[in-house]
Amino acid sequence: MLDRDETRSATRAGAGGFELHGFCRSLYPIARSITGPGVRETLAHVARHVPLEIHEVASGTPVLDWHVPEEWSIRAATIRSLSGEVLVDFAAHSLHVMGYSVPVSGVFSREALAAHVHTLPERPGIIPYRTGYYARDWGFCMAHETWERMRDAEYRVEIDSTLAPGSLTYGEAFFPGEEEGEVLVSAHVCHPSLANDNLSGIAVATALGIAAREAGARRRLGLRLLFVPATIGTIAWLARNEARLGAIRAGLVLTCLGDTGPFHYKRSRQGTALVDRAVAHVLGGGETPHALLPFTPDGYDERQYCSPGFDLPVGCLMRGVHGRFPEYHTSEDNCDFITQAALERSLAVAQAALDVIDGDVTWVRTDGRGEPQLGRRGLYRAISGQTTSAAASQMDLMWFLNLADGAHSLLDMAERAGVPFARLQAAARLAEAAGLVARVTVSDEFIGDTPLGAKDFPHA
Amino acid sequence: MLDRDETRSATRAGAGGFELHGFCRSLYPIARSITGPGVRETLAHVARHVPLEIHEVASGTPVLDWHVPEEWSIRAATIRSLSGEVLVDFAAHSLHVMGYSVPVSGVFSREALAAHVHTLPERPGIIPYRTGYYARDWGFCMAHETWERMRDAEYRVEIDSTLAPGSLTYGEAFFPGEEEGEVLVSAHVCHPSLANDNLSGIAVATALGIAAREAGARRRLGLRLLFVPATIGTIAWLARNEARLGAIRAGLVLTCLGDTGPFHYKRSRQGTALVDRAVAHVLGGGETPHALLPFTPDGYDERQYCSPGFDLPVGCLMRGVHGRFPEYHTSEDNCDFITQAALERSLAVAQAALDVIDGDVTWVRTDGRGEPQLGRRGLYRAISGQTTSAAASQMDLMWFLNLADGAHSLLDMAERAGVPFARLQAAARLAEAAGLVARVTVSDEFIGDTPLGAKDFPHA
Amino acid sequence: MLDRDETRSATRAGAGGFELHGFCRSLYPIARSITGPGVRETLAHVARHVPLEIHEVASGTPVLDWHVPEEWSIRAATIRSLSGEVLVDFAAHSLHVMGYSVPVSGVFSREALAAHVHTLPERPGIIPYRTGYYARDWGFCMAHETWERMRDAEYRVEIDSTLAPGSLTYGEAFFPGEEEGEVLVSAHVCHPSLANDNLSGIAVATALGIAAREAGARRRLGLRLLFVPATIGTIAWLARNEARLGAIRAGLVLTCLGDTGPFHYKRSRQGTALVDRAVAHVLGGGETPHALLPFTPDGYDERQYCSPGFDLPVGCLMRGVHGRFPEYHTSEDNCDFITQAALERSLAVAQAALDVIDGDVTWVRTDGRGEPQLGRRGLYRAISGQTTSAAASQMDLMWFLNLADGAHSLLDMAERAGVPFARLQAAARLAEAAGLVARVTVSDEFIGDTPLGAKDFPHA
Repeated sequence: MLDRDETRSATRAGAGGFELHGFCRSLYPIARSITGPGVRETLAHVARHVPLEIHEVASGTPVLDWHVPEEWSIRAATIRSLSGEVLVDFAAHSLHVMGYSVPVSGVFSREALAAHVHTLPERPGIIPYRTGYYARDWGFCMAHETWERMRDAEYRVEIDSTLAPGSLTYGEAFFPGEEEGEVLVSAHVCHPSLANDNLSGIAVATALGIAAREAGARRRLGLRLLFVPATIGTIAWLARNEARLGAIRAGLVLTCLGDTGPFHYKRSRQGTALVDRAVAHVLGGGETPHALLPFTPDGYDERQYCSPGFDLPVGCLMRGVHGRFPEYHTSEDNCDFITQAALERSLAVAQAALDVIDGDVTWVRTDGRGEPQLGRRGLYRAISGQTTSAAASQMDLMWFLNLADGAHSLLDMAERAGVPFARLQAAARLAEAAGLVARVTVSDEFIGDTPLGAKDFPHA
Repeated sequence: MLDRDETRSATRAGAGGFELHGFCRSLYPIARSITGPGVRETLAHVARHVPLEIHEVASGTPVLDWHVPEEWSIRAATIRSLSGEVLVDFAAHSLHVMGYSVPVSGVFSREALAAHVHTLPERPGIIPYRTGYYARDWGFCMAHETWERMRDAEYRVEIDSTLAPGSLTYGEAFFPGEEEGEVLVSAHVCHPSLANDNLSGIAVATALGIAAREAGARRRLGLRLLFVPATIGTIAWLARNEARLGAIRAGLVLTCLGDTGPFHYKRSRQGTALVDRAVAHVLGGGETPHALLPFTPDGYDERQYCSPGFDLPVGCLMRGVHGRFPEYHTSEDNCDFITQAALERSLAVAQAALDVIDGDVTWVRTDGRGEPQLGRRGLYRAISGQTTSAAASQMDLMWFLNLADGAHSLLDMAERAGVPFARLQAAARLAEAAGLVARVTVSDEFIGDTPLGAKDFPHA
Repeated sequence: MLDRDETRSATRAGAGGFELHGFCRSLYPIARSITGPGVRETLAHVARHVPLEIHEVASGTPVLDWHVPEEWSIRAATIRSLSGEVLVDFAAHSLHVMGYSVPVSGVFSREALAAHVHTLPERPGIIPYRTGYYARDWGFCMAHETWERMRDAEYRVEIDSTLAPGSLTYGEAFFPGEEEGEVLVSAHVCHPSLANDNLSGIAVATALGIAAREAGARRRLGLRLLFVPATIGTIAWLARNEARLGAIRAGLVLTCLGDTGPFHYKRSRQGTALVDRAVAHVLGGGETPHALLPFTPDGYDERQYCSPGFDLPVGCLMRGVHGRFPEYHTSEDNCDFITQAALERSLAVAQAALDVIDGDVTWVRTDGRGEPQLGRRGLYRAISGQTTSAAASQMDLMWFLNLADGAHSLLDMAERAGVPFARLQAAARLAEAAGLVARVTVSDEFIGDTPLGAKDFPHA
């Protein structure tokens, strides 16, 4: 239930000098991995738009069950014929070298080289993406047709890389809200030249940060943006912030948001958390092709946020789904595969979901009971029996006032009434201006001595 | 699951000298509004059949967020040509004058009059129904073809009405039961010459009262009948009875029960209250065309009973739905639109629902556990393996005894067994006569020191 | 979700010298009833394979609402022509005499005899099964065509039976487990020459006992096998074990397991008990044609176990359903109606359900939170991006580790992941061997001072 207006407004918010597809293009050539200069350069781009705090976690640092690995730097890599012809060159495409390849220099027989070559024989024109973070191995990825043409007995192989103690880098931006709680938005920054996965997520998260910066202090909940290397980066962040995770009311992992397919939302492990309901509401109503997926323990960093013990209310918003689109983890996931319009629509959906989460407050009738007289407050059509074009919003107001009993949040109401969240928000503003309702604050709900009586059984 | 027998019995109960359609015809000409002599005359008709207590609430009395309005009396209203020809006459149809029209007397240009004329241009032969209770305006309702024929430059307009301090009138009948709780039946009495909405509801409620009077003291729960002006009347009643609302175990608003369409039951705001389950059970089983509708905050007085803070378990039983049938709020909603057979069937459904609610008690095996030996009590077919025509009721008895654990009411059992409520009631009588079960009283359930242990969490 | 391997293993377990169909054939001729030598002879057959404790309950003993009846012995019964020709002979088929027929000896007119003759006129070639335990009557069951051929005026009738104080007999075997709880398997032993109902159930229960004996002490829960006369035998057992019923965690009534139709599982009265979920899981996945039936208070001994007050978590596993297959309770329910293959498959299903129940333990991550690093433990494919044939079990392990939070049992996991229980069991073994998880014991869950915090609200 995303109004056209909301789409425009979200796009506008992100449009102040920031062009989503252009941002992806500027990041595309950078050779990223889970550590190293590529991540730092990427974060520097983001930091031009969003106030980003850069964190470095030293190699070897224990983080939960893991250790931060050595830092990997790659400067050059080639396969040449013995006559000196360059056949495969990392400078031409960052996918050509398997991530975390150890340095190598020497002449290899074609047979020996073959054990280090990754291709897609059934799709001979494209380069696959491979990593071997913990394998202490090296490898080249190339089009199968390139490999087929390489028929010499021996080749000269050079990988000028470093695998050495250093640090893991991630970026974090926080926009405080009026209340203690916060909403997490997370995008992984460890993939090299792959546009949908995940320059699209980085771009949308950056745009959300721009909008948050422009919105100033008007937000109820804090917004925390994370730009992290997948898995180990997220685990490092969780380990370093374990005591503060209770503040996270909702979260979204953003990825694969630039393709033109239908939306996919993978629910949090909890399944019916606020974020799950908010995204389902925003995508619902029939205008937005989409599918809601159950949680599974694979995928992106939602699996870390939703790991046992943490079990945070974090879902994953995608268009194309991890591993299910043909361009996934290949050289075809490039900037031609993603579009500005798709990115804008993704931004609008993400922004609308954050707006629902932020606006999901609870109201109670100041009188405590009964249907108020709208007419004397100018909130009712004067002569009953006439159908007016305002009938819909009249009904919205009646839904709001009927459910403003301190037990229904605005999203509860929107779900029950089957209308867009923003319309019940508008009804709430009308009713508040007329003195008919008061907001129920968190302390009323959970701490205070109120008739809601939810103190002992907050989940009942 | 309404047996043919039940239909006949309910019809019989209401048939003792009381003819539903004839009662509607006798009420049809009366010019009702939310206050005034029309309501009093209508209640006087009801009081001939049901012991009715008449309440008058003075104009200006604050009732919840509202105030009782001035009383409106209408004696005559006409539009005449300047030559004296009567073109529109309230005496011909009570719909001709907008409810709560202020008095007016004078000559108006056609153009000036037009602002006070209500028609249905797309249905030129029929008169619409309009009110303006709080508008301090006046108006005439007429067939559009009448208005089209009126081509004079000026007309003489007379409305002989009074809008002055007086009182709001409603009628209330109470039939006590053996227990403290009570069931509410409410019909609005403020519509002028409109048969389905709501002379049908008034007639069915009156017939229920006749049946209750005849049933004497055999009912478990009290039955309260309300004949009230819609909205303000109901709000006045709620305000004046606020301390006693806790006694209401279930309630039904009755309206639009005379047309021949399928039944519609609009659930209470709670959605799964006893009344919701009882009506669904009575309408279920496939023989009665019907639809169950979710609660919405518009409609009839159920919206007042179900307003926040009160949230009473009150649903609305209809055939045609508020605003959805073409005759709604027009001169076509007359006594030809409703039929005796439809009214009788509606009465049977309402009576059956009340019977389920009244009979929904809980039983417990006197032995506490186990399947009793039916054979030695003459409750089992003597030679197993033979199929007898009593197999169905044998199964009813087995369902009853299996679920007579103090945790299932008879309606719980009927729902689980998928059989009519009355058959489980019959099984209960058999089992009680055999000393196999004892009734669980409310005090056992909610107050006593029993293994049911529901004292602290009655809603758990 | 029953793997082919599981079928084989269960069959193997029961195959150690025990042949299901042969066992049914050896029991078929025995004239069983709810008491008497036929039951004892049947239990003696079972006791050759399973360590069976034989219980005798004296006639007249009060058991719940019932009394143990007199013991019935039948030695011979014939109908002869006055010329001495034997027309109906109990020695030829145990169904020929109505169960609990009193002794009779004399000459009866055809008309007088007719009142004691039971046939199936519409299926003239087959003998029905009739009993009259509490009727103090006598009767013969025969093919209708036999009766049609009997056109003499008088017949000589002899029933050499005894109905006298004695006892009711049942057999019980118990295989202890590591924990206090136990699983009940119950088969009725009171039907005479009827193969599917219930020699099949006796045979499968016996095979489960053989498997349990061979499995030794490796089971978590105790397994209790009951071979009881239906209804009165079960009631006697319940009455004599009332104080110990709390130990029953799950139970299955086994009957009609030899026909070749689809499986039917009738849920316990609770409806979602562990046994209900376990059987649904085992039958699910699409490979096993089956239907899940709701509880009803008729059928077999599950109705006793599930009677009010007891309400034990006991369901009923069948292929053909009680009363719904044409051979039911007739001479056509013979050893040709059941097959070895069907019995083996039934055994496999029952064994798999018991294995799920026994293996349904709860695990918790030793670290308390987070996704562990599988790679350094050899539990992850070394180079990501490669699809391997072990992907499925990789995913099983990830599901297991994600849900090993102390709040999900293995069956919870299998249901959520949609994979066979055994695969999550395998994942649990891998994870336990790697030190990643620890088992949550019952005392941790319900008694100890653990972070699970379930002490106060064990059902929350």
